[in-house]
Amino acid sequence: MTTGTGTTTAQLIDKHRPTLDRALEAIRTREFWTPHPEHPKAYGEGAAEEGKAAFDALRGGRFELPGQPVSGAWVATEVSPYGLEMDISYPRTDEGAIDALLPVMRGGLPAWRKAGPEGRAAVCLEILARISARTHEFAQAVMHTSGQASMMAFQAGGPHAQDRGMEAVAYAYAEQVRTPERADWEKPQGKREPLRVVKEFTAVGRGIALLIGCNTFPTWNGFPGFFASLATGNAVLVKPHPRAVLPLALTVRIAREVLIEAGFAADLVALAAEAEGDGIAKDLATRPEVRVIDYTGSSAFGEWLETNARQARVHTEKAGVNTVVIDSTDDYAGMLANLAFSLSLYSGQMCTTPQNLLIPAAGISTESGHKGYDEVVADLGAAVGKLLGDDARANALLGALVNEQVRGRVETASALGEVALPSRVVEHPEFPGATVRTPVIVKLDGTKQEEDAPYLEECFGPVSFAVAVGSTEEALELLGHTLLARGAMTVSAYTTSPEVARQVEEVCFSEPAQLSLNLTGGVYVNQTAGFSDFHGSGGNPAANCTLCDGDFVSGRFRVVEVRRMAQ
Amino acid sequence: MTTGTGTTTAQLIDKHRPTLDRALEAIRTREFWTPHPEHPKAYGEGAAEEGKAAFDALRGGRFELPGQPVSGAWVATEVSPYGLEMDISYPRTDEGAIDALLPVMRGGLPAWRKAGPEGRAAVCLEILARISARTHEFAQAVMHTSGQASMMAFQAGGPHAQDRGMEAVAYAYAEQVRTPERADWEKPQGKREPLRVVKEFTAVGRGIALLIGCNTFPTWNGFPGFFASLATGNAVLVKPHPRAVLPLALTVRIAREVLIEAGFAADLVALAAEAEGDGIAKDLATRPEVRVIDYTGSSAFGEWLETNARQARVHTEKAGVNTVVIDSTDDYAGMLANLAFSLSLYSGQMCTTPQNLLIPAAGISTESGHKGYDEVVADLGAAVGKLLGDDARANALLGALVNEQVRGRVETASALGEVALPSRVVEHPEFPGATVRTPVIVKLDGTKQEEDAPYLEECFGPVSFAVAVGSTEEALELLGHTLLARGAMTVSAYTTSPEVARQVEEVCFSEPAQLSLNLTGGVYVNQTAGFSDFHGSGGNPAANCTLCDGDFVSGRFRVVEVRRMAQ
Repeated sequence: MTTGTGTTTAQLIDKHRPTLDRALEAIRTREFWTPHPEHPKAYGEGAAEEGKAAFDALRGGRFELPGQPVSGAWVATEVSPYGLEMDISYPRTDEGAIDALLPVMRGGLPAWRKAGPEGRAAVCLEILARISARTHEFAQAVMHTSGQASMMAFQAGGPHAQDRGMEAVAYAYAEQVRTPERADWEKPQGKREPLRVVKEFTAVGRGIALLIGCNTFPTWNGFPGFFASLATGNAVLVKPHPRAVLPLALTVRIAREVLIEAGFAADLVALAAEAEGDGIAKDLATRPEVRVIDYTGSSAFGEWLETNARQARVHTEKAGVNTVVIDSTDDYAGMLANLAFSLSLYSGQMCTTPQNLLIPAAGISTESGHKGYDEVVADLGAAVGKLLGDDARANALLGALVNEQVRGRVETASALGEVALPSRVVEHPEFPGATVRTPVIVKLDGTKQEEDAPYLEECFGPVSFAVAVGSTEEALELLGHTLLARGAMTVSAYTTSPEVARQVEEVCFSEPAQLSLNLTGGVYVNQTAGFSDFHGSGGNPAANCTLCDGDFVSGRFRVVEVRRMAQ
Repeated sequence: MTTGTGTTTAQLIDKHRPTLDRALEAIRTREFWTPHPEHPKAYGEGAAEEGKAAFDALRGGRFELPGQPVSGAWVATEVSPYGLEMDISYPRTDEGAIDALLPVMRGGLPAWRKAGPEGRAAVCLEILARISARTHEFAQAVMHTSGQASMMAFQAGGPHAQDRGMEAVAYAYAEQVRTPERADWEKPQGKREPLRVVKEFTAVGRGIALLIGCNTFPTWNGFPGFFASLATGNAVLVKPHPRAVLPLALTVRIAREVLIEAGFAADLVALAAEAEGDGIAKDLATRPEVRVIDYTGSSAFGEWLETNARQARVHTEKAGVNTVVIDSTDDYAGMLANLAFSLSLYSGQMCTTPQNLLIPAAGISTESGHKGYDEVVADLGAAVGKLLGDDARANALLGALVNEQVRGRVETASALGEVALPSRVVEHPEFPGATVRTPVIVKLDGTKQEEDAPYLEECFGPVSFAVAVGSTEEALELLGHTLLARGAMTVSAYTTSPEVARQVEEVCFSEPAQLSLNLTGGVYVNQTAGFSDFHGSGGNPAANCTLCDGDFVSGRFRVVEVRRMAQ
């Protein structure tokens, strides 16, 4: 697969095979590994300034995607939560553009299939390498679409997202090469000649994969599906959230450049931008050509996809109700500090942020004695207050609220119950237009077990509930009920009792959920590491898949066997 | 995991680990391997008589399942296609019995989870070993429920089905151990102490798996899902087809015996028998406790399950339209003999039997010159006639028609087009009540491309269509259209042209389907071998999964991670 001026797939394999092998080892051991440095300075002198300049150069202009069939109309939909003027126009994808685009995308599939699992992995790793080289630019794009604070946009939107993408490439490769390319099958027939059959096995993509991006983590949540689908031989159509187009548009443009250079069709990757309200996701998701879907967002639309996009394998990450069971601790201050950080990070706008803190009404035991429910809640509020007392640090941790709905929830939280910690308005010195709010903690009575209690619904944003329960046993019952009815991306528990720890584990085994126990240091329940932690379990209503495992990639391709009698 | 008198899981692991390792190697190389002999005599002196006697002892009696919660009512629904009196009664599962059964089944899950992937695999292999030892009894059970001829019931219902079951155990084991049980994660923090987290990973079943059995291949189509679900930590509820209960009831009873002996709850495996028309499958399939479903049968109910059983991972094998493209051959007699056998085996009642033979109206080239369409069809008819001319051989190949619907299709086939080969009634010397029919071949004009043409629908049974097409190119177009609209479990092609072979492959890559090229000897398109051939592709409407691959097992369990700060 060569072009006059391009890189051959063989060259890309030479370049990236060691990284692929290292990634394959990482997913086998799940020990710490990353090829993507977390520290901004690791990207070289002037990289931050260059990234910022590249981002600024995109603002106010048209984002061209040379060669992609387009409608001719343009649409600019992004609004920076920091108030920065974006005004970037993207080709608007209407029904006519879709009709033109899908066959063109399919046209590239045979050559992409022939590249084989290793060739496709190498192309994907080249795309990731070029994304990595532009991490500072991506950081700006993520910051000004999601509202994440600068450092988080850099890390979560950059190296961590790239890790998740590479992890998906590794799983995709491993899954495809589990079946050999050829088998010489020879079946004994007693005294007669054996039966001899030559069998060739080819991994083939399903067709067009649709990635429906989200507003809060466009790259982190988008890269796994994007790279898993591409690496398994599909074309990928990217439909970003209208308010977070740029990070995925950059991804698409880089992917198209690499594909062309390696001799493949650029339209194996394409962008479908829309105006807010166009609703093209529903149309795209049910097109017969679309065979794989990845989606992160609301439960309502996730369930709509699962129900209606029957022609596709649908991967969804929806909403859940994340729970912390607080039974006892031997590091009270460490627990409070850890929880305070988790509640504050990105203003609780992570799908992994704890929402319900289940605390026995009679209080808990700690290394410094018994603490009543009210005391625990007050101390947690104080810990949050201390963490965010300094505006500079508050801004660095909280980021900005992503939209008006989240602000609305913060402002109306007091209607749900007694406010233990009110939200505070924080001014942002650089971006006065940013809506920055500290988390609110509301006390709720969980002993009445009301079916319409606020803690049984997701309340996305910096609102958490200190739920008083009758006992740890009742907390575990409520946890089990919540997992079954609403699901959770994360469960966390604090206990000094091995027996309680075992019981929490049992609940998380029964309705599969990922559990963190007694986190007190610099590891937080809302963070998961690529190559090591599973993000979600895929076994409860919050998500039907996990990042990343064999199941996340195995449905994206099929193995076609061609058999012939041996000559 | 021990009981006073039982076998420990450790002993079962010692016993079966070498077989598991060999099976793991087989699915990696996909070379020929089977631990289950095909020849009836390999099962020992007197085994056939003992198996027959055991089967006869079951007839006319109640099939007890000691310990399983039951309703108290009994139901006898089986009718041997050979006319043999069955009259075996099974516990009838009504709604009350289901309500009682499901919680009891779930009760066994925690201990089953703790057995771990290796322990569960060993228990599954012990169940298979005991089934294997009773292969002759299973052969009788399969013969007198499916109507398969004696030798086929023995081989397909016995060793081949056991191969498919073991293959599923191997995939299930491999999938679960891809993630280590533990990882010590250590993330450098510059000059500070590294972050250290201990992560434990546990494979947990989804809950209760439902197996909905079919009439024609109760074990061969049932064992993969049964063992895949059990080996991944689920409880398995078996809902057999009312007319093919015994093979799966025996399986359930053997599994319960092994589970008890190994110290697990017998109700991890249970039987749900019903009267024809009870329709409990719909009720069971949508119970919240049911998280995995395996189904083989009609497209209508398969699609119902996919649409409605949203709480479960649904694996379906439905109906397709299997196609043979006949372009040219250098072994005309070999081609005809091979096709004649494939059309005749089990009276075409296999989901893999070819239905549409696409033949250019202008004829084909062969090593003995050009053959016109009429000549090819006539010669194929003659080959079938020759193969089945002897009644003893006809009975040995055809078996009996499984039900009245199939007989109806044979008898009304002449209404669809010109009959090239009429069906013949064959008397069965041992079972005069058996309905035995030779295949009918109907000529159809495929050049008009009518959307309601008979060849665009599955016509299950010994009815095939010799479809005249304008050219090989048109045949490939029709193949592609058929794969997209109806799907296929098998595609076959005869051609001496490498270019045509490549084009057929391309069609099968584009809408994934399994392809056999130029089969002329003792390998037939309707047969697939465990550990080597994929059964179906899972990528077209005929089935959403394949036997067997990683995707067939990966959704049956989740990996739950429990992480703690390292001490």
